[in-house]
Amino acid sequence: MPGVIVTDPPRADAKDVETLAGFGVATVHEAMGRTGLLGHHLRPNQQDCRVAGTAVTVLSWPGDNLMIHAAVEQCGAGDILVVTTTSPSTDGMFGELFATALQRRGVRGVVTNAGIRDTAELRAMGFPAWSAAVSAQGTVKATGGSVNVPVVIGGQVIRPGDVIVADDDGVVVVPREGAREAGEKSLAREDKEAATRAAFVGGQLGLDRYGLRDTLVQLGVTYRTYEQYTGEGS
Amino acid sequence: MPGVIVTDPPRADAKDVETLAGFGVATVHEAMGRTGLLGHHLRPNQQDCRVAGTAVTVLSWPGDNLMIHAAVEQCGAGDILVVTTTSPSTDGMFGELFATALQRRGVRGVVTNAGIRDTAELRAMGFPAWSAAVSAQGTVKATGGSVNVPVVIGGQVIRPGDVIVADDDGVVVVPREGAREAGEKSLAREDKEAATRAAFVGGQLGLDRYGLRDTLVQLGVTYRTYEQYTGEGS
Amino acid sequence: MPGVIVTDPPRADAKDVETLAGFGVATVHEAMGRTGLLGHHLRPNQQDCRVAGTAVTVLSWPGDNLMIHAAVEQCGAGDILVVTTTSPSTDGMFGELFATALQRRGVRGVVTNAGIRDTAELRAMGFPAWSAAVSAQGTVKATGGSVNVPVVIGGQVIRPGDVIVADDDGVVVVPREGAREAGEKSLAREDKEAATRAAFVGGQLGLDRYGLRDTLVQLGVTYRTYEQYTGEGS
Amino acid sequence: MPGVIVTDPPRADAKDVETLAGFGVATVHEAMGRTGLLGHHLRPNQQDCRVAGTAVTVLSWPGDNLMIHAAVEQCGAGDILVVTTTSPSTDGMFGELFATALQRRGVRGVVTNAGIRDTAELRAMGFPAWSAAVSAQGTVKATGGSVNVPVVIGGQVIRPGDVIVADDDGVVVVPREGAREAGEKSLAREDKEAATRAAFVGGQLGLDRYGLRDTLVQLGVTYRTYEQYTGEGS
Amino acid sequence: MPGVIVTDPPRADAKDVETLAGFGVATVHEAMGRTGLLGHHLRPNQQDCRVAGTAVTVLSWPGDNLMIHAAVEQCGAGDILVVTTTSPSTDGMFGELFATALQRRGVRGVVTNAGIRDTAELRAMGFPAWSAAVSAQGTVKATGGSVNVPVVIGGQVIRPGDVIVADDDGVVVVPREGAREAGEKSLAREDKEAATRAAFVGGQLGLDRYGLRDTLVQLGVTYRTYEQYTGEGS
Amino acid sequence: MPGVIVTDPPRADAKDVETLAGFGVATVHEAMGRTGLLGHHLRPNQQDCRVAGTAVTVLSWPGDNLMIHAAVEQCGAGDILVVTTTSPSTDGMFGELFATALQRRGVRGVVTNAGIRDTAELRAMGFPAWSAAVSAQGTVKATGGSVNVPVVIGGQVIRPGDVIVADDDGVVVVPREGAREAGEKSLAREDKEAATRAAFVGGQLGLDRYGLRDTLVQLGVTYRTYEQYTGEGS
Repeated sequence: MPGVIVTDPPRADAKDVETLAGFGVATVHEAMGRTGLLGHHLRPNQQDCRVAGTAVTVLSWPGDNLMIHAAVEQCGAGDILVVTTTSPSTDGMFGELFATALQRRGVRGVVTNAGIRDTAELRAMGFPAWSAAVSAQGTVKATGGSVNVPVVIGGQVIRPGDVIVADDDGVVVVPREGAREAGEKSLAREDKEAATRAAFVGGQLGLDRYGLRDTLVQLGVTYRTYEQYTGEGS
Repeated sequence: MPGVIVTDPPRADAKDVETLAGFGVATVHEAMGRTGLLGHHLRPNQQDCRVAGTAVTVLSWPGDNLMIHAAVEQCGAGDILVVTTTSPSTDGMFGELFATALQRRGVRGVVTNAGIRDTAELRAMGFPAWSAAVSAQGTVKATGGSVNVPVVIGGQVIRPGDVIVADDDGVVVVPREGAREAGEKSLAREDKEAATRAAFVGGQLGLDRYGLRDTLVQLGVTYRTYEQYTGEGS
Repeated sequence: MPGVIVTDPPRADAKDVETLAGFGVATVHEAMGRTGLLGHHLRPNQQDCRVAGTAVTVLSWPGDNLMIHAAVEQCGAGDILVVTTTSPSTDGMFGELFATALQRRGVRGVVTNAGIRDTAELRAMGFPAWSAAVSAQGTVKATGGSVNVPVVIGGQVIRPGDVIVADDDGVVVVPREGAREAGEKSLAREDKEAATRAAFVGGQLGLDRYGLRDTLVQLGVTYRTYEQYTGEGS
Repeated sequence: MPGVIVTDPPRADAKDVETLAGFGVATVHEAMGRTGLLGHHLRPNQQDCRVAGTAVTVLSWPGDNLMIHAAVEQCGAGDILVVTTTSPSTDGMFGELFATALQRRGVRGVVTNAGIRDTAELRAMGFPAWSAAVSAQGTVKATGGSVNVPVVIGGQVIRPGDVIVADDDGVVVVPREGAREAGEKSLAREDKEAATRAAFVGGQLGLDRYGLRDTLVQLGVTYRTYEQYTGEGS
Repeated sequence: MPGVIVTDPPRADAKDVETLAGFGVATVHEAMGRTGLLGHHLRPNQQDCRVAGTAVTVLSWPGDNLMIHAAVEQCGAGDILVVTTTSPSTDGMFGELFATALQRRGVRGVVTNAGIRDTAELRAMGFPAWSAAVSAQGTVKATGGSVNVPVVIGGQVIRPGDVIVADDDGVVVVPREGAREAGEKSLAREDKEAATRAAFVGGQLGLDRYGLRDTLVQLGVTYRTYEQYTGEGS
Repeated sequence: MPGVIVTDPPRADAKDVETLAGFGVATVHEAMGRTGLLGHHLRPNQQDCRVAGTAVTVLSWPGDNLMIHAAVEQCGAGDILVVTTTSPSTDGMFGELFATALQRRGVRGVVTNAGIRDTAELRAMGFPAWSAAVSAQGTVKATGGSVNVPVVIGGQVIRPGDVIVADDDGVVVVPREGAREAGEKSLAREDKEAATRAAFVGGQLGLDRYGLRDTLVQLGVTYRTYEQYTGEGS
């Protein structure tokens, strides 16, 4: 794996990123037709935190954080660092020192398919992180890899400059060309959800709001009293 | 799976539920002879929270939350919604909108073998949840299932109307016919634990309190000084 | 497994333990040449907590906490209880009553490869715990085991009297003979990290600080503009 | 867990069991409306083997095979031993000696949620086994449990006397009262599958045979040539 | 997820596919610079089998095999069906009937991130399969998805027409534009391996053949006799 | 991790190894008081194979097989190579070329906590392997490690020269000083098992042979007819 470091990839429009930052991961994921989710194995290191930014991607060898050092130089204000490894790894590739360097550059957080460490320090300094593992296990700087090439986490392709939205529910990627549309659709969905919320508060049922009573009938789902059900044998 | 929605199942007596709400999951589980635990894979979405309620059960197709809509209508004050799927799924079947509808009806929480989302919002609105996964992954409303039939989570059968007790340690089910007895035995156990706690605070050892020194002898467990032990080779 | 309870093993020097308590798990692990980590599967039951102490070790049968009772008597001020089972188990072997007995004796925490319960109570009483699982599942007192023999968790050997350091990142073991050296190296590493932190805050890059630009060249990692990269096909 | 050993439970009719033995697990599971499957974590110890029998159930403490000894006495010709533990365990609870005792009694196989050992010997003696793990780890005989009470594996309730069908695809349980109907429906399904197989061999498509082209249209699934698809951007 | 079925995507050249079929997965993966591997979670349903073919891709809803029916029509001689789901699923989406329909069309096998069933039948009819699970669990035909769009399995992007090579070691994807080069490099690697094999048979060591003695020295790895090592303390 | 290669460690007596080769893993594990098992996650790459040999141990960085090259030189007739990594890894560190080099030196097999590849070739050449994963994923030769230092797999310490016994049930380690005793105890156990087998074939029950009827009574396990049991409510 000789590796390549790609410089100055196109980034999603900053205004579109700000718009997406206003929505939660679930909303953006739904607005994009239920796509883009990086998988439930990525867990936040903090609570009640939501960020959005443009991806700087890193593909590293397991147990090796050399390419994160190379990636720091490629990061700027508004970015989110996205790190994966060529094969599964739980090592703590990212900690407080990297966060210090990135925070100075205006980077908004880190997302990794491997492990993080210095978790208390990361929370204390307000640098949000999402990872597949927490591990103090240290790494070496011995093997090449790539920066700003497309990477895959949880079945989703992430290209440099794509928008990353992350909150307590997980992480979603929005292709940079689709950021504006995703923002508009998220807004529309949020409006719709607000209306639904109001209706539910008012006592309406989803069965009625979404016309699901017919669906149940068509699917052959029937109603039984408890006496009927137990009387029929189960 | 044509499916059936069972209406008005018998529910455990409300007073018995209140009694059980006063005990932790571990206490109730022990009081019932170490049975009823739904498994360590169910984790709370919040901290320092304990609830008890009567189960409204849902059996859904993976990736499909149609039957949760049907279940909302069957839920009333004091219930806890219990959701499982016909095969393993981590999708976020349950979120803030469902919680809004349920909270209005006096439902006390949700327990699911699949995933939840809107986790920050659920905490903010004070609607407790226990789940096997957190995932923003959305679901469809396309396949039938059942409401208020017996379901199984973590090897335990849960029938509609059974008592669910949940806290930071997990979730336990108490058969509705056994709710009173479980409450009484929990109280007895709590008294016994209080006495043990006082004894331990006073310096007594479990070895003496439970007569375990004899047990050790009978099992052939021997005492050695460190010098004896290392001198004998290990 | 007849089992043995070893009394009064040598313990690491208390002053060395205090020194190590001042460093995080990641620092100590790195200072020891990236060894000693008990594995990322051990998770803390609390946040923002760091302890160090001398190990009292327990080897139990799965589903059986008899030997923890035997171990309590062997525990003294400054110890940390370390519990593992002869085969994998997630049962809640340790809870508030044990913590009460241990806290009275000046024990600083518990680390277990199996499960804990009463997690809210443990946090409330300030008794820190690290475990592989949280489960209310109770255990019996029927089978022998050993106390203060060498045990293995996460691939690391832990002997009685070795130093355990635990924080939000996990748990590390320091052999008792190496405690002083580990403390000195941790201090040196912390100094080095402080200098690096200051340099990063000042804008220096890891690429330059660690001389990694040469490494990248030697490994054949090349730089490309985005246009070059996409023009070349990927 | 004081435990109980239930003697002479009703068993499914032997002729119905024989009928079900003629079908695979997938066929029986489908014939029962896609229910009864014990979960994909149970794997066969042999290849190209299919059996059916009546369940003798065992609920054991983890790491303890005492109750299997008690269960042997309750087993007779045509039975299949079904073993689970009160909490997760991978220990090798069952091996060649048990198989020898059971084979003599006409027992047809073993299904366990825990581990087996002597796997080569079991294959050599033609005693089929399905388990969640293979492990040489030995067990004790120290804690009580139950025989012939309802147990749960993989979310399915298994009562003594229910029919167990097992093959290379896994294990399915058929409630003893439903054995005849399951056999009849399995036969019907097999006939239907034979017709479908013939149709597929003849070149018919599932799209046409099941009328799925309309379904696709209703769901909004559209056809695009590759040029259209890539021209539209993806 | 409205979904799209893409017809007649470009396919890798048949001759290049044949060439790649002559190499194992490990060889092709290495020849491509250690890329393209679909992950160790995909296991073969048969032993001693190696195939290569062009991918027809399917993206399905979990628990739903509707889109596999749509995909059959898009499959032709020399193809391999590649199926994944929008969120994790272990259901048995693929079995003997699909294999019958595909075998008639000259399809060479199936690769799926979900489950398969009828595993004995698939082996008997000589239709190779690689899957993440074996499960008899049946599926519905209720939700849309896509055929011949790019999908991701195990972190690798698979586009329709890309080459799939699969054997006992797993599955690797070769981008269709790179098939020729991958074949040439695989041949070169195989030649190199044959030379290495001969050298190893002749007694040469990898340490000498690859010049690794210098590497060890540079990395500070030292040689010690057992006496030196144990005398120094460990 | 500078690393060390230890030469000519003491090895267990060859005759004792031969003796142990005559017993299965389960027998040896039981004979040693149920210790020494390397864990159920190590699975054989072949069926119906049993070997014993003396350990040459390797501690490698994840994704790096440099130290296996160093270890080959330390291997001789009768050895078994034992490989683990400093943090979890599933990469295919070991394949046919290493097996070729080792087979020439009279090495009897490989045991690894990480992954293997060329699995069909390993079977074809009769070189047995036990591993935690099968993966074609290739590795680099960039980071130091150690050979013939004590390593830990599955909670067991393995020192160079210790005896490894492996079969279809897994892998067990016997400390080299205890090899003779383990052999003698295994023989005794095998004799005892032969007697038990004969008794079981003759119809004796384990309940009687091991005096377990009393145990059941002491534990409070009771017998009930099915009518009594269901009449009492369950």
